[in-house]
Amino acid sequence: MYDLIIIGGGPAGITAGIYAARQRLKTLLVTKEFGGQIAKKAVAIENYPGFKEITGPELLEKFEDHLRSQDIEIKIGEVIKVEKPAETFELTTSENEKFESMAVIVATGADPRPLEVPGEKEFIGKGVGYCVTCDGPLFKNKNVAIIGGGNAGFEAAIFMNEYANKVYILEFGAEVKADQRNQSIAQKREKIEVITNAAVKEIKGETFVSSLVYEDQKTKEIKEIELQGVFVEIGYQPATSFVKGLVDFGKMDEIKAEPETFKTKTEGLYAVGDTNEGVYKQIITACGEGCKAALNASAYVFNMKNK
Amino acid sequence: MYDLIIIGGGPAGITAGIYAARQRLKTLLVTKEFGGQIAKKAVAIENYPGFKEITGPELLEKFEDHLRSQDIEIKIGEVIKVEKPAETFELTTSENEKFESMAVIVATGADPRPLEVPGEKEFIGKGVGYCVTCDGPLFKNKNVAIIGGGNAGFEAAIFMNEYANKVYILEFGAEVKADQRNQSIAQKREKIEVITNAAVKEIKGETFVSSLVYEDQKTKEIKEIELQGVFVEIGYQPATSFVKGLVDFGKMDEIKAEPETFKTKTEGLYAVGDTNEGVYKQIITACGEGCKAALNASAYVFNMKNK
Repeated sequence: MYDLIIIGGGPAGITAGIYAARQRLKTLLVTKEFGGQIAKKAVAIENYPGFKEITGPELLEKFEDHLRSQDIEIKIGEVIKVEKPAETFELTTSENEKFESMAVIVATGADPRPLEVPGEKEFIGKGVGYCVTCDGPLFKNKNVAIIGGGNAGFEAAIFMNEYANKVYILEFGAEVKADQRNQSIAQKREKIEVITNAAVKEIKGETFVSSLVYEDQKTKEIKEIELQGVFVEIGYQPATSFVKGLVDFGKMDEIKAEPETFKTKTEGLYAVGDTNEGVYKQIITACGEGCKAALNASAYVFNMKNK
Repeated sequence: MYDLIIIGGGPAGITAGIYAARQRLKTLLVTKEFGGQIAKKAVAIENYPGFKEITGPELLEKFEDHLRSQDIEIKIGEVIKVEKPAETFELTTSENEKFESMAVIVATGADPRPLEVPGEKEFIGKGVGYCVTCDGPLFKNKNVAIIGGGNAGFEAAIFMNEYANKVYILEFGAEVKADQRNQSIAQKREKIEVITNAAVKEIKGETFVSSLVYEDQKTKEIKEIELQGVFVEIGYQPATSFVKGLVDFGKMDEIKAEPETFKTKTEGLYAVGDTNEGVYKQIITACGEGCKAALNASAYVFNMKNK
């Protein structure tokens, strides 16, 4: 029986682990891998206070090293189910191992939402990507499309403007959703072209991506753009189905949690970082949330033991 | 006219500054000094993710360096008044300079209320501390006193029970003020001893703390306890009177702010870190709050400009 099980090894989970261990909770951290999204960043991180400029893998190494210096058990594995049959939680991994704990912090992050069109899956890593900061520089002097006209899409396009020959932003709706600042910055970049009412139908190619097919939703015309890269920027999806029944979900499967304590509707169960409905999704905010949840969980466990 | 003025140069203010600058806000940060409470920590910080062990001044140097690498104006000074006569804010410093901005983030921190007895200042970091979560683990197998018999003092003592050899709680009054739960938990811990009517007179030592002198207020007897650590837990004091009229205060002068956005009751005015009513007062949580407020302020300023 653990006091606390933390699921996830990104910034939120790691911070929760550091704090839980220092609170002397008997803690297990289960994660598929360490780092979450920061592990995938090839471009420098410049907004984690204390490091003016650090690569994702470097920051991750420091985080993981910090965590491992604490008195905490770590298990590489995937939790596929969390249940609370009585007062305590029961967790099941994909290898059918079972763990029991008084409190659980979900910190499994989020994955980019896929487009779900033919060609997308086949060409992942062969022209299709979800992270311009990671893979963008590979498309120097190539034509690329960014799918999604929100802030993430515009920021990706502005970033790609530095590398690519041509950058299309394809927005499904009649109007882009990015804020005015991003729009005005993009307007000043000659390589960027915004196409609205564009319903992506297919990504085509042989070994690598060579074109993208979309329907102009106004004219119903089918159009094809020759390009070498497609970046999908239509949001993130937390993979949170393993806590179904214990929490309420938002429309993108984000877990509803209180913003001060990160408590969910189930006592003793917390959701931090990109798994919850919070608006701000930064490394530093994920860390802050992990800390708050761990301190709240510590008080919760303490009360359970002293009831 | 600034987009944003940040008042305070601790972790919360510095993070807000980094984010505001990266959001391209025309930002001024005004602070009496840099670092807030971390500047005063002589003992290593072990719970800021990414640094397994770093002194306060070292971490502060990295924070300040990070901030100064951004496009932000910095002014060393003290804001003594914030007003909002119309849509924008007017700030006045102690040198009677005036600044104007669309949004304001208050990040002036809080100071632990000092005991104000001989030896206290001299032994800060050498046995005297104000944060058991930060420094408690260093007192493994030592004797410590917690000054203050409120909930904070009892919780500190219960925490220290896990590490220390002996934990005294010294309460000035005839009765402790902690709630019954904390009292009954403390009673079950054999290492914890509560001493009431104890007026602390002096903290003694050579290089490090070696004893504490108090007067039993009932018998007027002077007593001395041999110990290595003294934690002062008699409350925190945010100095927030300069925003009077614009915000609501809690009973310790903490500013009431929404926990997700850190908005106060005045539009465009935010309170982060130790200035607000939030329960968790860690470096990493202060940073997370600074980031969230800066991103919210950025959207607020953007909307004002595009109204």
